[in-house]
Amino acid sequence: METKELEQLLNDVREFVVEELVPLENQLMQDGWEAVLPTLREKRKIVKSQGWWLPQMSKDIGGLGLSVAEFGRMSEILAWSPTGHYCFNAQAPDAGNIEILHQYGTDEQKAQFLQPLANGETRSCFSMTEPEHAGSNPTIMSTTAVKEGDSWIIDGHKWFTSAADGSAFAIVMAVTKPHAEKVYARASMIIVPTDTEGFNHVRRIKIMGEAGEDWASHSEIRYEDCRVPLENLLGGDGEGFVIAQQRLGPGRIHHCMRFIGMAERSLHLMCSRAAERELSPGVPLGSKQTIQNWIADSRAEINASRLLVLDAARKIDEVGTKAARNDISIIKFYTANMLMRVVDRAIQAHGALGVTDDTLLSWFYRHERGARIYDGADEVHRRVVARNELKPFGVKVT
Amino acid sequence: METKELEQLLNDVREFVVEELVPLENQLMQDGWEAVLPTLREKRKIVKSQGWWLPQMSKDIGGLGLSVAEFGRMSEILAWSPTGHYCFNAQAPDAGNIEILHQYGTDEQKAQFLQPLANGETRSCFSMTEPEHAGSNPTIMSTTAVKEGDSWIIDGHKWFTSAADGSAFAIVMAVTKPHAEKVYARASMIIVPTDTEGFNHVRRIKIMGEAGEDWASHSEIRYEDCRVPLENLLGGDGEGFVIAQQRLGPGRIHHCMRFIGMAERSLHLMCSRAAERELSPGVPLGSKQTIQNWIADSRAEINASRLLVLDAARKIDEVGTKAARNDISIIKFYTANMLMRVVDRAIQAHGALGVTDDTLLSWFYRHERGARIYDGADEVHRRVVARNELKPFGVKVT
Amino acid sequence: METKELEQLLNDVREFVVEELVPLENQLMQDGWEAVLPTLREKRKIVKSQGWWLPQMSKDIGGLGLSVAEFGRMSEILAWSPTGHYCFNAQAPDAGNIEILHQYGTDEQKAQFLQPLANGETRSCFSMTEPEHAGSNPTIMSTTAVKEGDSWIIDGHKWFTSAADGSAFAIVMAVTKPHAEKVYARASMIIVPTDTEGFNHVRRIKIMGEAGEDWASHSEIRYEDCRVPLENLLGGDGEGFVIAQQRLGPGRIHHCMRFIGMAERSLHLMCSRAAERELSPGVPLGSKQTIQNWIADSRAEINASRLLVLDAARKIDEVGTKAARNDISIIKFYTANMLMRVVDRAIQAHGALGVTDDTLLSWFYRHERGARIYDGADEVHRRVVARNELKPFGVKVT
Amino acid sequence: METKELEQLLNDVREFVVEELVPLENQLMQDGWEAVLPTLREKRKIVKSQGWWLPQMSKDIGGLGLSVAEFGRMSEILAWSPTGHYCFNAQAPDAGNIEILHQYGTDEQKAQFLQPLANGETRSCFSMTEPEHAGSNPTIMSTTAVKEGDSWIIDGHKWFTSAADGSAFAIVMAVTKPHAEKVYARASMIIVPTDTEGFNHVRRIKIMGEAGEDWASHSEIRYEDCRVPLENLLGGDGEGFVIAQQRLGPGRIHHCMRFIGMAERSLHLMCSRAAERELSPGVPLGSKQTIQNWIADSRAEINASRLLVLDAARKIDEVGTKAARNDISIIKFYTANMLMRVVDRAIQAHGALGVTDDTLLSWFYRHERGARIYDGADEVHRRVVARNELKPFGVKVT
Repeated sequence: METKELEQLLNDVREFVVEELVPLENQLMQDGWEAVLPTLREKRKIVKSQGWWLPQMSKDIGGLGLSVAEFGRMSEILAWSPTGHYCFNAQAPDAGNIEILHQYGTDEQKAQFLQPLANGETRSCFSMTEPEHAGSNPTIMSTTAVKEGDSWIIDGHKWFTSAADGSAFAIVMAVTKPHAEKVYARASMIIVPTDTEGFNHVRRIKIMGEAGEDWASHSEIRYEDCRVPLENLLGGDGEGFVIAQQRLGPGRIHHCMRFIGMAERSLHLMCSRAAERELSPGVPLGSKQTIQNWIADSRAEINASRLLVLDAARKIDEVGTKAARNDISIIKFYTANMLMRVVDRAIQAHGALGVTDDTLLSWFYRHERGARIYDGADEVHRRVVARNELKPFGVKVT
Repeated sequence: METKELEQLLNDVREFVVEELVPLENQLMQDGWEAVLPTLREKRKIVKSQGWWLPQMSKDIGGLGLSVAEFGRMSEILAWSPTGHYCFNAQAPDAGNIEILHQYGTDEQKAQFLQPLANGETRSCFSMTEPEHAGSNPTIMSTTAVKEGDSWIIDGHKWFTSAADGSAFAIVMAVTKPHAEKVYARASMIIVPTDTEGFNHVRRIKIMGEAGEDWASHSEIRYEDCRVPLENLLGGDGEGFVIAQQRLGPGRIHHCMRFIGMAERSLHLMCSRAAERELSPGVPLGSKQTIQNWIADSRAEINASRLLVLDAARKIDEVGTKAARNDISIIKFYTANMLMRVVDRAIQAHGALGVTDDTLLSWFYRHERGARIYDGADEVHRRVVARNELKPFGVKVT
Repeated sequence: METKELEQLLNDVREFVVEELVPLENQLMQDGWEAVLPTLREKRKIVKSQGWWLPQMSKDIGGLGLSVAEFGRMSEILAWSPTGHYCFNAQAPDAGNIEILHQYGTDEQKAQFLQPLANGETRSCFSMTEPEHAGSNPTIMSTTAVKEGDSWIIDGHKWFTSAADGSAFAIVMAVTKPHAEKVYARASMIIVPTDTEGFNHVRRIKIMGEAGEDWASHSEIRYEDCRVPLENLLGGDGEGFVIAQQRLGPGRIHHCMRFIGMAERSLHLMCSRAAERELSPGVPLGSKQTIQNWIADSRAEINASRLLVLDAARKIDEVGTKAARNDISIIKFYTANMLMRVVDRAIQAHGALGVTDDTLLSWFYRHERGARIYDGADEVHRRVVARNELKPFGVKVT
Repeated sequence: METKELEQLLNDVREFVVEELVPLENQLMQDGWEAVLPTLREKRKIVKSQGWWLPQMSKDIGGLGLSVAEFGRMSEILAWSPTGHYCFNAQAPDAGNIEILHQYGTDEQKAQFLQPLANGETRSCFSMTEPEHAGSNPTIMSTTAVKEGDSWIIDGHKWFTSAADGSAFAIVMAVTKPHAEKVYARASMIIVPTDTEGFNHVRRIKIMGEAGEDWASHSEIRYEDCRVPLENLLGGDGEGFVIAQQRLGPGRIHHCMRFIGMAERSLHLMCSRAAERELSPGVPLGSKQTIQNWIADSRAEINASRLLVLDAARKIDEVGTKAARNDISIIKFYTANMLMRVVDRAIQAHGALGVTDDTLLSWFYRHERGARIYDGADEVHRRVVARNELKPFGVKVT
């Protein structure tokens, strides 16, 4: 997309987010996701009518066709308000599922699972994390899928299957080739409609005080003798991790740009508060040097984060996810930590108001603490970076 | 109390907390305060039967008679589990209200308001903070109480009136002498039964995702033409801030020891996790140097905090709250920040589990973020300390 | 310059620095600047013969003609070793002086002062900071220059006149229009040959244990009835601060890219050490997660810094120093602090060796602590950024 | 010593340090240790005449007989000025050597080596660290001492043998029982007069820009076929590490109290500067909230450190070094880091002056960076603490 065209698009989207979505925040904060959902469905119609729908995907499935770097820019804007990505059908985990179904799905899978998802008629979830195993080594996994006749029989225990509540199907990561030499070649992805017998929804996990609901929830699932047709294998047998890596690269760009959008919003809230709150008549909070320091540090760290992420997005567009892996690790831990610092400063600047649900800050504080954990904890990404840095010196980081 | 006797008491209480209260945590986390309340009433009976009731107060109203420093030690232990203080009738804001009613109340006030509170038959709240004014300067206050006949007529808007839901009465801070020369001499404390007309409970404020209920809530109140007898004045007219300071001194010790107790619990959870979580067979999470660093830093900071707080408590016992004011400011911001760091490390060490309500950490993370704000934000206490430090050099910190 | 040509140039320069200058470091560390100076003069000849001389200036005075952003890239490489900038005649304060003489100097000034400086035949200094006044407000200045006949008579007390020892002339900032309405319009720049009577060199200030010598020194100067011709005014009367701002913009880019170069070198030393130091046979220091964390954080922060600085350089090239002012403030405090963190980690990774002069780290640690102070302390730049951020909200930061 | 007597002593010593030693600082900073040494010898006479000499040792060898906790208090005061400990003959490494000679020395060793040292007639050094081996595991050591006839023949390479320049003797750690099963039982301490043939002084190591001289230096030593009588063994054969541990316990208390003394001095300098430096007429630097925050944080951290250290000292006095080992590790890394933070803030508060040798801050900054490394790097002590913390959970930290 040409620069000028892109800037116009971003401006229009920014205006939409500010005028149409920001006003919904209070209802979301006070009454929860389902209260606001009917309105969001209306907003989705506007998005479609504007031609903004599914901005991150190519036009053949109804998307806008932005590059990773271009969607990065937009993702920041969508993140200004918690419902932004949802209204554009660019929300995790659907965005990632759409991407891999588009790239690896058979024609039948695309017809049955991808297109309704791309259209926003269904939702989906991704079932990978297991409570019994450390996320730092995803290859250690207990869920298995065994071929029997023309079915996969899946057994296993998953959690943090985000948005499972109300989803049409899950993409499940399961060990199908337990004896493959390379641990990375043991698991596969299998599509499991959620109404399949043996797909047992245990609970929406209560996280930071909220079990959530519908898309805004994270579930624990038990797969117990759960049978799906062999054709539900997504990609090749044993290619689960290869596809997952593919899925995670741009996905982390999106996450990181989301973090930046939320950090910008938090900084904006902090500045508003600094202007509006008077310490004494005529003396705004913003006259305090402590607040000024917080604002300056936040601005510097946000700008640094944005440049890092857009640079990594550019690399993905130019040389692919694999070559950009180190950059992706850097942005993941750097921006997630940046976000938490900015949110924390903004809360402190708000005083007692900052811990209430009368501002968006408590939402960010609770919902995004996981940012330093999911899709690779800080420690995992630091290890990747150290490994790359030390490799030329002959040190092998395991 | 003699050292040996105190240590025995603390051991017994520790055992009680671990065996009787810790098992209630999951219900509290998953189902909320009211679900666990009937059980807590039973636990309170045990506490009474053991002679541990109201440990922080003197024996004349049914307390155990611990000194500030002694109760500091116990407070840490009670904080191991979120229901600890409540079961001992040592929870804020009742503890503070009991203290000032005991010290400043008339005989009638003691009979009517103090004794039922001390007995645990009623609860109370404290109505000071106003949404329109910065907490950094509590003397700026809009709520007024005007004498008319034999009544005070109170008008004003308060929030963060903690535990108002279900309280028998509020102690309200209101301007009674607007023209007093010293701003500190303008406000008074007045006792307002919550069933008084004009005591309008607006809402339990949703904080960090939870509106809470009963004791575990924070309310917004509007006092509108709210009339109480002149005899409901607590202490002298215009002495509101003097009494508040008196209330806050030991109160901050209790808070800080609570912070330490929660930090100890978080460290304990982190160590448990470091032992139980395996990165690969036989390799516990605790083998990782990053985790070890978190544990070591947490231990150092907790120990430092405890020594600081107990030293401040000793000063209060020996020379009074006023002389210990600088020490109290130091411990307030130092320990509140320490707590948040330790909790944050413990969450990170737990990975995805750390953000769920399956451990206590998310409770601490959400409920205690306010610790850096209430009873004087970090910035306010740093200012106090800087003021004291710079005074000998002739710099006046305003 | 075309990308490919630039990359070739940078590679060649990198090779030169590593092969010709790095080997001089030990002599510099152990024996000081003057010991290594004769060799540096030889290296300058190589630089000239390669056509790399004065890379930051235009070709009309013998430079290479790089843009701000291009020289930024090179500056990072030169900073790999402490003598890099000197060998290319791109060292502060000469680089800044060359720039303003080139832009504001009269033909006579260019012939007499600029060209020999550009040729590397002379050195110069810049006399602005006064010990009696806070650097945070440079407009408060006591040094005056009064016209008398055809002379300026300069009186004042300056320090941190870097490289004054051995300089041919100083550019002095002095108040010439004390009654100008705007404080920014009161001072002018005047060229003072150092052999002028009344240019009294008090001392080379001992900084971090070293008085230094020649270019590698910082002097205290007293201007006492110091007379120079009226023609020595540089730029217009009262334009001192306007010119200084012009000088500081690109100068800060250079500084920041120097910081990045030193940080890269420190990270390289840390990685080398992590590889070479064995904790036990076959177990390198780099196997420790603590070191890995330091390396990963350093890499992330260095990359972030570089993108920030190059982005600011691009803005200067495209829209000028003034429009990029906020960006320049951001990079100044962000990269200076980044540098100190990276150096500190590298020292710690070296253990006892890290505090000796057997590595370059102690040089960076001592010589660059000033980076957070000179050319605007952290606090000053944070204020600038906060001011810009709060302006749209109606808060005026003074 | 009784409280009142101790307080009087401390007051007297404080007055002595402020009036007699602080005025020497500028000479020390500008001209170095040897310039000030003759004056220090005079000051030592005053100290002796006051009965303050050798405060940390028992009276039988001419000391004052303070307990570890009592001397901790005094050590803080002595550290106010860099020559304090020296003037009281309480400087490292002599203090440690005196202690172990006193505890483990034979009568002959006491007569020949201890008493002149205790009298201040000689100085000594301690030769343990080897450049080829990581300090994190001191049991890995290449220096050997082999019995031959009635001699030990010592061969090895040591550095950071502090104060070797001008010392009468070194206490050398060398492997004497290379085949002992426990690595801790392999090394012994041997007394080596510095005029022994084979005691080859390589250089005073240049550290942070200064080679130093006399007591204020750190040397590299090669022991080459260096022979001393068998009677020079200090303590039992193979007891080197046992004695070293004994030496290090109280030694770390002294170090940590020194750190606190220097931090107090730095805070004092920061407050002075905050009062004296005007940002504009009548507006002191101390009016800035950033400075106030630095002051408040420094005060909190210093107080926390002091309580931690005195608590550890009390434990050593009451239950011995071994039982206090975890506490000692905590204070070592906690206070060393605290010191560096406080010094750094104080430098920043001084602006350009802060990096010059016109204040003591640059001395602390350079000389004490090693505090986080010597006597166990931060990482080593954190490991000790984590090991203790995780032991009850069944995790073995290696």
